[in-house]
Amino acid sequence: MSSVFGECFKVATFGESHCPGVGAVVDGCPPGMELSETDIQAQLDRRRPGRHAISTPRTEQDTVEILSGVENGRTLGTPIGLLVRNRDHRPADYDEMSRIPRPSHADYAYQMKYGIRAASGGGRSSARETIGRVAAGAIAEKFLRVQFGVDIVAWVSSVGVLDAADLTGLPLTREEVDRTDVRCPDDGIADAMREAILEARNAGDSLGGVVTCVCRHVPAGWGEPVFDKAEARLAQAMLSVPATKGFEIGSGFAGSRQRGSAHNDMFVMKEGGIGTATNRSGGIQGGITNGEPIVFRVAFKPPATISLPQKTVDFDGQERELTAKGRHDPCVVNRAVPIVESMAALVLVDFALRQRAREWPAPGSPEASAD
Amino acid sequence: MSSVFGECFKVATFGESHCPGVGAVVDGCPPGMELSETDIQAQLDRRRPGRHAISTPRTEQDTVEILSGVENGRTLGTPIGLLVRNRDHRPADYDEMSRIPRPSHADYAYQMKYGIRAASGGGRSSARETIGRVAAGAIAEKFLRVQFGVDIVAWVSSVGVLDAADLTGLPLTREEVDRTDVRCPDDGIADAMREAILEARNAGDSLGGVVTCVCRHVPAGWGEPVFDKAEARLAQAMLSVPATKGFEIGSGFAGSRQRGSAHNDMFVMKEGGIGTATNRSGGIQGGITNGEPIVFRVAFKPPATISLPQKTVDFDGQERELTAKGRHDPCVVNRAVPIVESMAALVLVDFALRQRAREWPAPGSPEASAD
Amino acid sequence: MSSVFGECFKVATFGESHCPGVGAVVDGCPPGMELSETDIQAQLDRRRPGRHAISTPRTEQDTVEILSGVENGRTLGTPIGLLVRNRDHRPADYDEMSRIPRPSHADYAYQMKYGIRAASGGGRSSARETIGRVAAGAIAEKFLRVQFGVDIVAWVSSVGVLDAADLTGLPLTREEVDRTDVRCPDDGIADAMREAILEARNAGDSLGGVVTCVCRHVPAGWGEPVFDKAEARLAQAMLSVPATKGFEIGSGFAGSRQRGSAHNDMFVMKEGGIGTATNRSGGIQGGITNGEPIVFRVAFKPPATISLPQKTVDFDGQERELTAKGRHDPCVVNRAVPIVESMAALVLVDFALRQRAREWPAPGSPEASAD
Amino acid sequence: MSSVFGECFKVATFGESHCPGVGAVVDGCPPGMELSETDIQAQLDRRRPGRHAISTPRTEQDTVEILSGVENGRTLGTPIGLLVRNRDHRPADYDEMSRIPRPSHADYAYQMKYGIRAASGGGRSSARETIGRVAAGAIAEKFLRVQFGVDIVAWVSSVGVLDAADLTGLPLTREEVDRTDVRCPDDGIADAMREAILEARNAGDSLGGVVTCVCRHVPAGWGEPVFDKAEARLAQAMLSVPATKGFEIGSGFAGSRQRGSAHNDMFVMKEGGIGTATNRSGGIQGGITNGEPIVFRVAFKPPATISLPQKTVDFDGQERELTAKGRHDPCVVNRAVPIVESMAALVLVDFALRQRAREWPAPGSPEASAD
Repeated sequence: MSSVFGECFKVATFGESHCPGVGAVVDGCPPGMELSETDIQAQLDRRRPGRHAISTPRTEQDTVEILSGVENGRTLGTPIGLLVRNRDHRPADYDEMSRIPRPSHADYAYQMKYGIRAASGGGRSSARETIGRVAAGAIAEKFLRVQFGVDIVAWVSSVGVLDAADLTGLPLTREEVDRTDVRCPDDGIADAMREAILEARNAGDSLGGVVTCVCRHVPAGWGEPVFDKAEARLAQAMLSVPATKGFEIGSGFAGSRQRGSAHNDMFVMKEGGIGTATNRSGGIQGGITNGEPIVFRVAFKPPATISLPQKTVDFDGQERELTAKGRHDPCVVNRAVPIVESMAALVLVDFALRQRAREWPAPGSPEASAD
Repeated sequence: MSSVFGECFKVATFGESHCPGVGAVVDGCPPGMELSETDIQAQLDRRRPGRHAISTPRTEQDTVEILSGVENGRTLGTPIGLLVRNRDHRPADYDEMSRIPRPSHADYAYQMKYGIRAASGGGRSSARETIGRVAAGAIAEKFLRVQFGVDIVAWVSSVGVLDAADLTGLPLTREEVDRTDVRCPDDGIADAMREAILEARNAGDSLGGVVTCVCRHVPAGWGEPVFDKAEARLAQAMLSVPATKGFEIGSGFAGSRQRGSAHNDMFVMKEGGIGTATNRSGGIQGGITNGEPIVFRVAFKPPATISLPQKTVDFDGQERELTAKGRHDPCVVNRAVPIVESMAALVLVDFALRQRAREWPAPGSPEASAD
Repeated sequence: MSSVFGECFKVATFGESHCPGVGAVVDGCPPGMELSETDIQAQLDRRRPGRHAISTPRTEQDTVEILSGVENGRTLGTPIGLLVRNRDHRPADYDEMSRIPRPSHADYAYQMKYGIRAASGGGRSSARETIGRVAAGAIAEKFLRVQFGVDIVAWVSSVGVLDAADLTGLPLTREEVDRTDVRCPDDGIADAMREAILEARNAGDSLGGVVTCVCRHVPAGWGEPVFDKAEARLAQAMLSVPATKGFEIGSGFAGSRQRGSAHNDMFVMKEGGIGTATNRSGGIQGGITNGEPIVFRVAFKPPATISLPQKTVDFDGQERELTAKGRHDPCVVNRAVPIVESMAALVLVDFALRQRAREWPAPGSPEASAD
Repeated sequence: MSSVFGECFKVATFGESHCPGVGAVVDGCPPGMELSETDIQAQLDRRRPGRHAISTPRTEQDTVEILSGVENGRTLGTPIGLLVRNRDHRPADYDEMSRIPRPSHADYAYQMKYGIRAASGGGRSSARETIGRVAAGAIAEKFLRVQFGVDIVAWVSSVGVLDAADLTGLPLTREEVDRTDVRCPDDGIADAMREAILEARNAGDSLGGVVTCVCRHVPAGWGEPVFDKAEARLAQAMLSVPATKGFEIGSGFAGSRQRGSAHNDMFVMKEGGIGTATNRSGGIQGGITNGEPIVFRVAFKPPATISLPQKTVDFDGQERELTAKGRHDPCVVNRAVPIVESMAALVLVDFALRQRAREWPAPGSPEASAD
């Protein structure tokens, strides 16, 4: 009962790794917006496996079909059904693993929770689950872009121990991010990252990394105290992505080591109004956006499924050596980039609508008169 | 519209820093549990200001009154109303600040959001808002302890640049944590932390820090894929606490620098069943608890309100120098300890009830027959 | 876990009949609206017991205190805490009833649900529970009136077998309704209703009745397909009021006996735009308001607690004769009038905010530019 | 943002009358239950149009596909995606109607709400929207039947002015209901009902009616005070069905005309425990089930779309005569029977899970020990 996200712009996702299809229902998208499969397919293609040597060889076209909620190229305001068929099943790959829970994977925990679990692949814990999010996120993103000019760009800022330079101050584009298949726009380190991933893959091992995301042109005033602070919902959204281990907004953990006098962002006049001279707040203060770019970082662990043999125990407690088959990513951060962007969009669009619900014109104004 | 948290164990909080009272309504606490004000007061006292030289001099007794939902010392299953009166108001302290938004505080963002804001103190963004959470969390915690033996203990693991040793492997108690007023159970560093806080206070400055929390005896199977993964809800809960900047579960950001073969937690047989040899997962795999201790860390920034003069602009965009008055904490981490514990309890109790909603006895079993 | 109502304008109520206090937390009220206890007290006074010979002799002042969310007479946009103290407890009245569940009362069902129940009075099923709704509803109502001129008036349209004339076409005011203590504005029948209630009271018996409610000046376009159709949420709201047995919108059950050609409301031009010549739809079509007055009726059963002896069984299954003590209403419909109005207001205000969340200005328009 | 229903057993529906497909996502169905398309298809077939002379000639096979959440014939506990393709589109039928809002239909209200609306058919207000509910309801129903033996049977109890005898006391089966195509199990009136519907159809007119529903073997203790009382959620669920105008539980409006001494249901000992001698409460007291059969009635208006010419105005306010084309039901009650049953099941299953979330074994009992 937790595959629903959002209050006013609500997304319900469905689908396992090896069932007929995955997708989502988007409820609450404002009416009248131009929308077609093309708007959604772009991000799905960026998320799609099998495109690079550095990702899983599983091949899926991941073609989305809009089932409802759109007519003549415009949203109706009604729920938008989204469906992507699973094509490249190979359940047979998973025979051994059905008896041995993969270390640091969801197999064991799912079994303990449900008393049953998908016989093959990660089931609901598979990365294929994120397709529904990305499809829904693409709609959210379009609304934010058309209505506000919001611009959300994420990239890989570290792979293993290799760190890119801090690029959060640059107005990066997705084209710049996608110039390399590791999706790191720091040319000085991208090749080394790629080499590291290939090396890990060849060694039957895996690598973690960090994705950094910046959301520009977000209006001040979004985010809902108390429990739905902007950073709180972003943190939830990011930690809901498979394989994540940490979240930082603005200065993050490093900020905890500073003194207030050094950390505070002074207000200054900017073109267009009041802004801050620095942005250690990461665009959010007291849970509410302040008009500065939202900047956050998400840590991804090295994928749990590796080809190296692992000494572990099976569901009966017997010691076993597990050598995983199946097709797996040696590092997920480059494919995680559009997922992070999509989740950010789902968080922000919900805040946009919730804030709109609160903003009433003054009684007596022309707009206020509704009858 | 976001002061409500939880699905099955639901908390609605209310209250600003300088209004008549703060509190919460808890909806969904199972019936029949022994409960009195005493159960709640203990954590409120730990959160209470004015107890130490290292916290704000504002004095509040923060005595809780149970308004409803409990009769003859037992919960009725109906909503539990909780009220704490605000006593030590000093609105006059805030005159200047009403015209100059405090750098890195919520003043500016609230004004942009609501077009109005509490004239004094932080209003809803004040730390007093957390009283409702702590009161509700104490109830959650009692349920978890009585029903499952869940044990939640948080402590200060760093203040500024001073780091305590890693104590997550020890079964620490709250008594051990409270032995020092900085709430750091590492005797080797606690005094230095205290000195650093006093030094910052005397300098009119402030310090950040990190709180580490461990939840033991949490059954395997709690947490809800997809959006309500256990780490996702914990991240939301923690980032909803004022002044937080980051969250890590298990290995966290450091884990993103490891290889899968080094990072994976191998399954082993333990007394009581299958467990893991290491705990880089932090007790959660695929969003679901695996029976190992839940371990997470929360970064707090240095408080924004400092006595040092700050060059900033007022709401009209005029350059001003702000010297904050009022009574403020030079460092919030020690008082944040019970808040972190309370939010963890609210997250876990909701998962406990949601999991219970799903667990049905096999049809035909004696327990299955309900009519 | 069901004392929370609404999506964008959210109300959480608490309180039993004999606990320290009852009240509500309102989360989502737009900021900047003038509000004081006076705005709320008026409806609480109309709901208050002990004012007439025809209601329960329990005397309560029911004075409301605003705990939070309002400063200097204006809403802050933050949760509004509302508290009414219980004063006139008489738990001793309920000794016998604690062992014998009152026929058609909630005693038995609560015991089966919770395994425990308030030792005295109806606990959470008491009419005192509605205080929180009325207090919250008064806030909702003020917003609807100030912002849209929405006018909600309910009245007693039948008591037992005595039916008032159909007054739904008249623009009745609350003053006209309150001219008689039975709150029936049909002078031809009000006295007879009053007599019938007194006769029933003197006979130790009780009477049911019907409340009719009209909401005028509701803009077209409110209500949310599918599950939150306007009539669906109104039906939920009304059937959530204690002692209700039925709900009709517009033509209601009688409409089910008509032919479509006779039942359809033809569209016509009216001053101000398109309207309908008749209003069998009751102001709602397809779940969405059409600008015509919303008209609905709510059936109330005769109160279950009567003084006449009743042959029943106790919790042990032993045959017993129950003669209820305590102070009870011989007929609830007159006191239900402000409760029905309040629930209607809570339904409508939530729709107003939800519709607002969806209504976006065209991109490029001045209002659309938010950054 | 209102196509989601339920708290613990959550349903999100999607689809318009003339889009690629309609369906639902069910989130929260307990794991391990046997489930296949066959379980769902039966109720879809009962709802399907084109089967009888007395319903719309639109022909749809309405074959359901389970997209996710089920593997090897068992539920996984993950979201169950359900899809039914729309086949028999005839958008051309709706050209004229796109300019003239049909009287008493949703056309006008949708246009006012969204500023856009499906160009053909009723869009989201079409009866095809109910497919998702029926598919989801079939899953709910199976769970209730397997786990508790709950038995939900609805039937047509009136068509226009023709009333069936009161059959609520009989343990009717769906087979008995389906013996006639009007789905009225009172043989004395069924033929007359059928004739009346055919006569109305031939006259280009339509008829309303009433559906009665009985839910047997529902355990005592389901339903959630305050806003989610069992009768309140049932009322919402029923009034959310297209074309409904009224809801009664138990004695309903007639009960409001009785005295308490005549209306109260005395408790008596029955086989299996305490029950009531009569059932004017309709199986619910204080919002909570009491173990007696739940009995309620739902009023349906005559369908708004009729072939008779109607004098009305178009969206520009010009007087027009509308003669509806398209394929429409002259009376919806017989097809509404499985919809009413499905909505009842969705309400009850959610209560079952929510009650389960609250029922904890005593601490110390074997079941209580989870770690």
